[in-house]
This record gives sequence, C-alpha cells and structure tokens, in this order.
Amino acid sequence: MIVMKSLPLSYKKLLEKNKKLTLLGSVQGTMSWDMETMMPPRAVGLRSEQMALLSSIFHKSATSPEIGSLLAEVMKKGNFDMLGQIEKRNVELIKKSYDERTKIPTELVEKIAKQRAVSVNVWKKAKKKQDYSMFRPELEKNIDLSKKLAEILMKVKDAKSLYDALLDDYEPKITTDAIAKIFSKLQNELRVIISKCENSGIQVEEIKKSASIDAQKKIAGMLAEFAGYDITSDNAGGRIDETEHPFTQGYFDDVRITTHYYENNIFSSIFSTLHEMGHAIYEQNIDQKLKYQPVGSACSYGIHESQSRFLENMVGRSKEFWTFFLPNINSVTCLDLDMEKLLLYVNRVRPSKIRIEADEVTYGLHIITRFEIERDMFSGKLDACDLPNVWNSKYKEYLGLEIKNDSEGVMQDMHWASNLFGYFPSYALGNIYGGQMLGAMNKKFPNWKEDLSKGDLTKERIWIKKNIYDNCKIYDPADLIKKITGKPVSVEPFVNYLKKKFGAIYGF
Amino acid sequence: MIVMKSLPLSYKKLLEKNKKLTLLGSVQGTMSWDMETMMPPRAVGLRSEQMALLSSIFHKSATSPEIGSLLAEVMKKGNFDMLGQIEKRNVELIKKSYDERTKIPTELVEKIAKQRAVSVNVWKKAKKKQDYSMFRPELEKNIDLSKKLAEILMKVKDAKSLYDALLDDYEPKITTDAIAKIFSKLQNELRVIISKCENSGIQVEEIKKSASIDAQKKIAGMLAEFAGYDITSDNAGGRIDETEHPFTQGYFDDVRITTHYYENNIFSSIFSTLHEMGHAIYEQNIDQKLKYQPVGSACSYGIHESQSRFLENMVGRSKEFWTFFLPNINSVTCLDLDMEKLLLYVNRVRPSKIRIEADEVTYGLHIITRFEIERDMFSGKLDACDLPNVWNSKYKEYLGLEIKNDSEGVMQDMHWASNLFGYFPSYALGNIYGGQMLGAMNKKFPNWKEDLSKGDLTKERIWIKKNIYDNCKIYDPADLIKKITGKPVSVEPFVNYLKKKFGAIYGF
Repeated sequence: MIVMKSLPLSYKKLLEKNKKLTLLGSVQGTMSWDMETMMPPRAVGLRSEQMALLSSIFHKSATSPEIGSLLAEVMKKGNFDMLGQIEKRNVELIKKSYDERTKIPTELVEKIAKQRAVSVNVWKKAKKKQDYSMFRPELEKNIDLSKKLAEILMKVKDAKSLYDALLDDYEPKITTDAIAKIFSKLQNELRVIISKCENSGIQVEEIKKSASIDAQKKIAGMLAEFAGYDITSDNAGGRIDETEHPFTQGYFDDVRITTHYYENNIFSSIFSTLHEMGHAIYEQNIDQKLKYQPVGSACSYGIHESQSRFLENMVGRSKEFWTFFLPNINSVTCLDLDMEKLLLYVNRVRPSKIRIEADEVTYGLHIITRFEIERDMFSGKLDACDLPNVWNSKYKEYLGLEIKNDSEGVMQDMHWASNLFGYFPSYALGNIYGGQMLGAMNKKFPNWKEDLSKGDLTKERIWIKKNIYDNCKIYDPADLIKKITGKPVSVEPFVNYLKKKFGAIYGF
Repeated sequence: MIVMKSLPLSYKKLLEKNKKLTLLGSVQGTMSWDMETMMPPRAVGLRSEQMALLSSIFHKSATSPEIGSLLAEVMKKGNFDMLGQIEKRNVELIKKSYDERTKIPTELVEKIAKQRAVSVNVWKKAKKKQDYSMFRPELEKNIDLSKKLAEILMKVKDAKSLYDALLDDYEPKITTDAIAKIFSKLQNELRVIISKCENSGIQVEEIKKSASIDAQKKIAGMLAEFAGYDITSDNAGGRIDETEHPFTQGYFDDVRITTHYYENNIFSSIFSTLHEMGHAIYEQNIDQKLKYQPVGSACSYGIHESQSRFLENMVGRSKEFWTFFLPNINSVTCLDLDMEKLLLYVNRVRPSKIRIEADEVTYGLHIITRFEIERDMFSGKLDACDLPNVWNSKYKEYLGLEIKNDSEGVMQDMHWASNLFGYFPSYALGNIYGGQMLGAMNKKFPNWKEDLSKGDLTKERIWIKKNIYDNCKIYDPADLIKKITGKPVSVEPFVNYLKKKFGAIYGF
C-alpha cells in the first residue's frame, strides 16, 4: 500500500500562479512567431506595443506580492518537508525567478520588449542594405538596456560580472571563467583538427544540389517523419514555415519550426530543418505530467542545442543516415546524388563566414569569436562602434577569412538585434554536451548506427526521452550531464568524436 | 488665435487605460486568427487555456476599480464640460463597457472563452462528419453560457429581453421588435422579387469557372490592388490566407483576411475576397488620430457588413466592375469568359442552401431564418435539440429547399459554435444600410459607375472614408445613417436597388 502525501495548499496555489505565467509566456511566444513569419510589415509599431504590454503584464504577474507570500508559506519547514524532489525544485525555480524579477523595474521590461521589436526590424533592413551604421543606434540601445538589466541581475544572482549574470539565464550556474577555460581547450583542439584536414590534400568536389522549392518541401516532410515531428496528421503538434533565419518556437502541443529554402542548395534547408526539429521534439516530448510546472521545460539553452546539433550533425551528417535517407531525395528531385561524394561534401571542413552554414569542426570558432566579443562588450572594453573591426580581425585571426561587408560579418545573426546577449556560448556547449551524451548512448546501444541506417531510432528515442527530455529542468545542465554520463562537463568526448569522424574522412 | 482647451488629467489616464485594453484585445484577435489559420491541431487544448487566460486578464483590467474612479472623476461637471464631442463619446463608450463588464463574473468570461475554442473545434469535426449529435452538447453549453451572460447584460442595459441584450453588442440600441419589423418588410419585398425572377422565364446558363489555385491567388492579388488593400509592398498592412470559412481579423496596421479557393469555381474566392476586403479597408482606414480610442473602431457589425457587401455586391457584381476587371481574369486563366454570360451568371437569383454563397436577393431570407431561430432560442421556445427540424422546415417554407444533412443546414455557419448569438441580423442590416449609403453616393457622384468601369474609385473612396470610416464609432449606427443620408433606417433604398438591378436583368 502506498500512502500519498498530500501537498500543502500554498504549493498548489503557487503552481496555479505558475501555470498562468507559463500560458502567458506561451502567448508571447506565439506572438513572436507571428511577428517573424506572418505579420504584415506595417504592423511593426503596433506589435512592439503589444509585446511591451504582454511583457509588462507578465512581469507584474510574476512579481505579485501574492507569489512572495505563497513562497514564504511553502518554504516553511513543515510545508517544504512535505514536498518531493520535483516539487522542491519547482519551488526553488519559482523563487529564483521571483527574487530576480522583483528587482527589475516594469519600465525596463517594457522598454526591452518594445526595443526588441523595433531593433529586429531595423536589423533586417540594415542587413539587406549592408549598412551597419543604420543598425548601430539600435544595437547601442540594446547593449545599454542589457547592461542595465545585467547590473540588477548581477546583484541578485551574486554574480561576479555583468556577463556572468546574463550567462546564467541561458546556462544556469555557468560563469565567464568556466566558459573561457572550456573554450580555450576547444579552440586548441579545433585548430589541430582543422589544420590536419587542410593539410590532408583531400579536395572536396562540388556536387549538384539544386532542387525546386516544392521538392525541398517534400524532403522537409520526409525529414519530419523520420524525426517523429508530426506536421501532417489530425493530431499534428508542429508546422514548418519559412523565415530568413530558421528558429523553433513553442510549448508542448504547439511547437513550430522555420527553415529557409534555397533553390540552389538543398542542404541548407535539410540541415536547418533537422536542427530545428531537434529543438522541437525536445519541447514536444517533455513529460506531459510536468506541463505548466517550472521543471516541465528544457534544462538550458546548451542542452537544447545538444539536441538540435545531435540531430543535425551526429545523425544528419552520418553515413548511416544517408544510407537510409538518400533514396528519398533521389525520388523527389532529379539529382541522382552519389553517396560517397555527398558524404564528403556535407562533411567538408572549411573555414567559412556564416555561422549557421559552418561545418562541425569550424563551428566552434564562430562561437568563440562571439563569446569573446560579448564578454568584452559587457566588461566595457568594446562599444557598438568597435564591433565591425573587432569582428573582422577575429575572423581573420581564427578562421583566416576576409570579411567583405558587415552583413556577412557582425550583422549576420539576429541575436544581438533581439537582445539575446549571453546566448551564443550555449551553441558550443551544446556540441560539447552532445559529445558526452553520444558517448553514453554508444555504451547503451553499441549498434545504434545500424538502427539509424534503417531509419528506425525507436529504441534510442526512448532512451533520449527518459534521460534528457523527461529530466527536463529537474537538474541544472552540469548536473544533468553528470547524471547521464557520470562525468563532469568535458570537451574530450566531443573532440574525440570529431577526430574519429574527420580522421576517417580526411585520413589522419 | 485659437485657445486649445487642455484635457483633464483623469481623461488622459482613462484613455491610457483604454489603450492597454485595446492592445490586449488586438492580441486576442491575432491569437484567434492564428487558431483558425496556422495553429497545429494538437494545440486546441493549450489554445483554449491561453484564450481563457487572455479573456480573464482583459476582463480584470476592464473592470478595475481604477477605471471606475477615473470615470467618476472625468464625469464631474467641471471636467466633462471641458471635453469635446469625441472625448465625451469616448467617455460614454468606456462607461457603457465598464458598467456592463463589472456585472459579469470573471469565471463566466473565462468559461465562455475556453468553451469557444473547444466548441469551434468540435463543430469543424461534426460538420465534416455531418453529425449534429456530435456538435449538440457543445452548442447546448454555448447557449447556456450565452443565456447566463444575456441575463446579466439585460439588467445593465435595461433591455426588454435576453436577445435584445445580445443584439445591442452587435448593433447598439437596436431591438428584437425593430428588427422583426424591418425584416418582415424586407421578407415581403424579397419574395416578390424572387417570384418575378423565377417567373421571368430567363434561364441562366452554367459557365466555365475552373482555374488553378495559383491563378486564383493571382486574381485575389489583383482584387486587393483594385480595393486598395495592400498585401505586397514593404508597408503592407494586410495578408490573405485560406480557411474554410472566410473572415477578417485585425486592427489598423494589421488587418488580415482569409478566403477559400475552389478549383472548380473561381467566383467563390473572388466574391469572398471582395467581401472580406470591404471589412479590411474599413478597419485600416479609420482615422489614425483615433487609434486606441474607443471611438476609433467600427460603428457596428451592421455598418461593417454594409462595407463588405457594398464591395462584394454593389461593386463586385456590377457590369462596370466586370468591364474593368474581366481582362485580368482572362489574362491569368484559360477561361476566356464572355461578359454577358458572366454577368447573368454572377447575378443569378436562385434559392440555395448555403448563406455565404447566396445571391443578393435570397440572402436576406437566410438571415431572417437565423434571426427567428435565435430569437426563439433566447425566449426559451427552442432548444438545441429542436434546431435541425426547425431549420429544415424554415428553409422549406422560405426558400423551398429540402435540406439533406445538417452540414448543409444548421451546422453551415461558425457563429453559433463561436458563441456569436445576435450577430446574424447585422448581415441583412448591412445590406439595408448599404442601400441607403449607395443612395447618398449616387447623389454625390451620379457618374460613379463610369469611374468604376475604369477601375478607379479614388474620388468615391475619399467620400467613403470621410463619411463612414472617419465617423467610425462616433455615432450609433442609426445616427450614422441619419447623418449620411438624412433619413432613418429604411428598407426601401436597398429594395429599390434590387428591383432596378434585377428588373433589368430579368426583364420586369
């Protein structure tokens, strides 16, 4: 017989408040998605007012004194002891967010929301015109607002620096120093691999890769079927739209991705679709029992990226995946692609200018560049006016490339226009976490690649759901990695994965 | 020299509150649009929770005691006298809404919002399956909730009946009795015209009307250009999507329409696009100075319909419009349509089962049917279980038609699934208002049809903007009609328009 402990009323009320906040957050999400995909251009001003209002309502609800009283009540010893691990974590997550938010003035929240909509819009136009001077005033406002926010957060979080305070929102408990250490190791290893590839003498041939947008949409549908991302059935929980910059947005039963189809390159949409679906199936497959609870969301941005980059790269650029998937492509296009040439082509290691088109090896250097610039921006060493020069010289130094204009340089990503300072490191951390998770999966399923070559990862998906999706936000990212792999965060497994894979391709 | 009276602070604060409510309402609008056009089906439950929360937030803000105090302050004699006509009207509209809303419990508002999302979803499925028994339980809940709401509104509005209370939300100050009188006159007149057409001996030939969806989308774009509904420029404020049931949704800079393309019938999307664009350009062209003010919105649902049905019918089914527009259709399709046959075909008078496909003459009978049923539902004479029989017998009696299943009968429209009881009469009132406005326009521009045959209604549009759009909600609908035409609401101008037009076509 099991005696269920009943939960204190204050806990139930607190979670009811959290449910409303979560719903409101999901409304903001859908409105953001609409802004990027569907909204008529004239509506920018209206939308920025709508978003500011929603942010302000969210902020007021999230900082209401009622939540404070409920937190005090539920954290009394007698009450708190009645809670299980997950309930305790819920309370802690609400407390963290409440403590932080109550220090942030509503006006600042509204300003940031309003400025985001305006600044993204200007960035789009400036990028089209290759005119950084057009974007700079908006970027300056963003940096200024983010600094104001970081100053407040730094105190509440007891962080050592402004940038530390920002990083914690994306990768809880990580610090600038810890990232610098990890990235320094990563950079050294990547440079070795890149130089081995460059010196291998292997020339990668261009291949045919044009197909109609219609054919590419069919391919995206097939990829969705493979990934278990339902966009067609009567119970579909997703959809694919087009934006210049692919992204994923959603919550549980409504998780949407975007991609970009280029007629002259089917691989752009193939890999971006896989990437975004990695995000989407994570969000969709979190335990429904945890819906509307703080723990019922993704662990961190880095863990999120581990999922997207696992699907995009470790799966999507593997021989086994293409063994299974290539016939699909040949069936809806006239390409008649050759397996060996294709594999070499999609795994070509070559410094390039655009992050989202970078290969698995050089990708990390794009992130390290951004990390260093953000760190120096928030320590006061760099201002918006310095960015193009610093960007270009780092691309020269790390990747050996001449950046010709700011649209292929400092303005290529939407993050800074969207006020998402502190996000970038999560991409490289995602690769690193992914390497460690892959190690654990390899142990559990030594033959998983055989399953992949049949297009059937059912068993592996159950493992991923149990270990990653269902652990959602119950742990901080470093603890989750420890739980799954038994080890602390470490660069080696990812580097070893790269060495093994690219060593085989480039013969070193 | 002009001395500007400054406005009392309480007025400014009140309007600031109203701006937030308006923005929140526009968010609800976009979320509803998304639900009908883009949302993955699995998200129905999530969306119904989101909509309920938004309704509850709206309701709480709209009934906050602060608004009550500001209203009391601004209505003090010294303050109120400082206001001009528009400001006074703003205060009165806010007061009306506040007085009504403060009587409605938040729980009822949430229930209605949640139920709407669920019920629309069930209606769609039931309609597809032709299964009224599937829809009935949801409809019963809707009727029950609407009765509860109407009971409250009846007291505040000092209305004579539940249905009167509902009608006032769509057509301010109109009553069931007034509509019954107008509709009785209309019905008699329509029957005479229908019987003359039927007895004319004129047979309308079927014409070719199939075209690819792509071609139909091009036609929709051309119609948008004609109507001044911008969906393509960098400053576009609209867009066209596809839904089974066409609708318009939006506010000022973001007004979207939907249509339905049938490959075997280009006219369905042509007339529904024109209809919805009539709504859209009304919303888009209200004086920007009045944005976020209560007066800065459409006068009533009936006046709205006068605009949509003016563009769809009085313009869209006229010889002059087709003189201008037919070459466009012949240029993007292979139809090579003949002008005379086309005109006869799109003006064919013939009782039919589906309201939105009805001709200008029989249309009114569809509305009268719905009006009578709604009236009897809310007086307690009819329950949900009676509806199919009553519907079918009225269609037999008024239109001489045998309804074969409830999907072409009582379930054809979304209104009752969406809890929009009291909306239907506005469609017929729209025709009637439209007839009166046409009369006024004919006086001002006796040669406007010549302009139309050149596809250039610039002059007429300025007149419409000045008289209808810019008068927005400054007047109640009957007063607006009086202001524009100098006369009270009257059926004659519309009936005379029909007689003249169809007399010429059918030779009576």
